[in-house]
Parts: sequence; C-alpha cells; structure tokens
Amino acid sequence: MSEPRWLSGPEQKSWRKYLTGSQLLQTQVEADLRENFGIGLAEYEILVRLSEHENRSMRMAQLASDTTMSRSRLTHSVARMEKKGLLARCPIPEDGRGVNCAMTEAGWNLLVSAAPTHVESVRENLVDLLSPAEMAALGTIFSKVTHHLRAKENS
Amino acid sequence: MSEPRWLSGPEQKSWRKYLTGSQLLQTQVEADLRENFGIGLAEYEILVRLSEHENRSMRMAQLASDTTMSRSRLTHSVARMEKKGLLARCPIPEDGRGVNCAMTEAGWNLLVSAAPTHVESVRENLVDLLSPAEMAALGTIFSKVTHHLRAKENS
Repeated sequence: MSEPRWLSGPEQKSWRKYLTGSQLLQTQVEADLRENFGIGLAEYEILVRLSEHENRSMRMAQLASDTTMSRSRLTHSVARMEKKGLLARCPIPEDGRGVNCAMTEAGWNLLVSAAPTHVESVRENLVDLLSPAEMAALGTIFSKVTHHLRAKENS
Repeated sequence: MSEPRWLSGPEQKSWRKYLTGSQLLQTQVEADLRENFGIGLAEYEILVRLSEHENRSMRMAQLASDTTMSRSRLTHSVARMEKKGLLARCPIPEDGRGVNCAMTEAGWNLLVSAAPTHVESVRENLVDLLSPAEMAALGTIFSKVTHHLRAKENS
C-alpha cells in the first residue's frame, strides 16, 4: 500500500469540528423532539416524508431510500410507530412482496403538533447561527456527498 | 405561541441535504472501519483522543466531553473495548470517584493499522469532493454549532 494521503492540518480540524458539531446538533434536535413528543429525529423524518406523498403513504423500499435508513432499521422504527398508532402497514395487492406504509390521522396530528417546536430547534441550533452563504454552503457540501455515495451504491 | 418561524425554501433544502448526506457519510465511514477493523467511528475516536494524551490515558469525564458521548454510551463502548483488550480502566488514587481510561498496546496497534484505511475513507467520501473553501466552511459552520451548544450546556 502506498503512503496514506493523511489529512492536512486544516482538513483534519474541519473534519473533527464537523464530527463534534454534527453529533451535538443531532443530539439536541433529537432531545427536543423526544422530550416534547416522544419521537426521535428519524421518526419525525418518516412522518415528514409520508406527509409529502399522495394519500400520505409510500412503499417501504422508497421510504428507506429517502430517509437513508437501512431496511432493518426502518422496519424497526415503523413497527414501533405502528404500535403507537401513528402509521399502518399493508401489503400492496398488485405486488406480492411490496408493503405500503401509510400515516394515520394520529400520525398527521403528531406531525402538526411537533413541527413548530422542531423548526424552532433547527433554527436556534443551526440556521440562526449561520449566514445565508454558510447555510447554502452546507447544502452544497452535503449534496456532493450524497451524490457521490448514491452513485457508489448504484455502481 | 407566536407563528412559527418556518424555514425558507432554500433553508429547508440545505437542512435536508445535510441530514441525508451526513447520515450517508457516517454510515459509510463507519462501515469501512467496522468491516476492516471491527470497530465503529465512536470507538475509533476514543482511540484517537487517547493517543493524543500523555501516557495515552484520560479521565472518563474528559473523554466523554471530548467525544461528545453521553457518560452511559461512553461507559458501554469502553467496556466493550476493554473486553477486546484495547483499553484498560483504573480508579484514580487521589480522586475517590475518578476513573482513568488508558489505551493498551493492542489498542495502539489497532489505531495504527486502521488509520490509513480510515483517512482514505474520509478523503474519498468527503474531503476529495470539496474545494478547500468548502472544507473550511464545513469547519466554520460546525464550530459555530459546537460553540452555541457548549455554551448552552454550561449555562
């Protein structure tokens, strides 16, 4: 193996700042949701995605891909949310192996209640700290990462 | 409660791109470590932090703070790593409740073996995709987040 391409000092600093800050941010946003509404960030994202689709329902495979959750983690989260009455799963008649996941009225009501608190948490702990240019850079940076990793998945 | 300060379209896009990209990135970097060396990113970070301290050892409280892990999660990870012979814990004589965590020779050897693969993974999936300015912006953004959240913790 050739000599590793070690990170430069500034690259390493940025990488570590990202690791630390991102961890703290996600912990805080997750805690704000959990304390007030009993769901985590991943569960909130599941509700958001469903709310944006026709009939507030999606195929499990699509939901896994959109939320970047593994199938097993998604199945676990969905089962927990189904138990709480927030979601319902049913087989897709025209597709023997497909399963649809739909939001219930209770799921929709929870999303509507949680959204203002959640957006306030995202603002306070991220958006309001950044200039518009920094917020745009954040999007650009992670689009590049997503594009790279999705291409790798499909290659 | 006053009308929520909803995110603007561009803010919401950036926030979601960050959520998706960051999740994919951490999953990939974690998988590269785990498949090759049997440890996750959090465990790798514990080894890195210890390697930078005198005697390759730190107080558990400091290690929790530096890695942004909760005490319970850190205790869990350290116990697992201790079982594998990578770390050793011992009480601090002059401090009845303090516990020191030290890296063993095996822990050091694992870090030395894993570092080239890990840095290659961080480069390929993040650093090499970004311009130097974007890499610097990433550091700035998450320094701001960390500063804000640490100040909140201490207030």
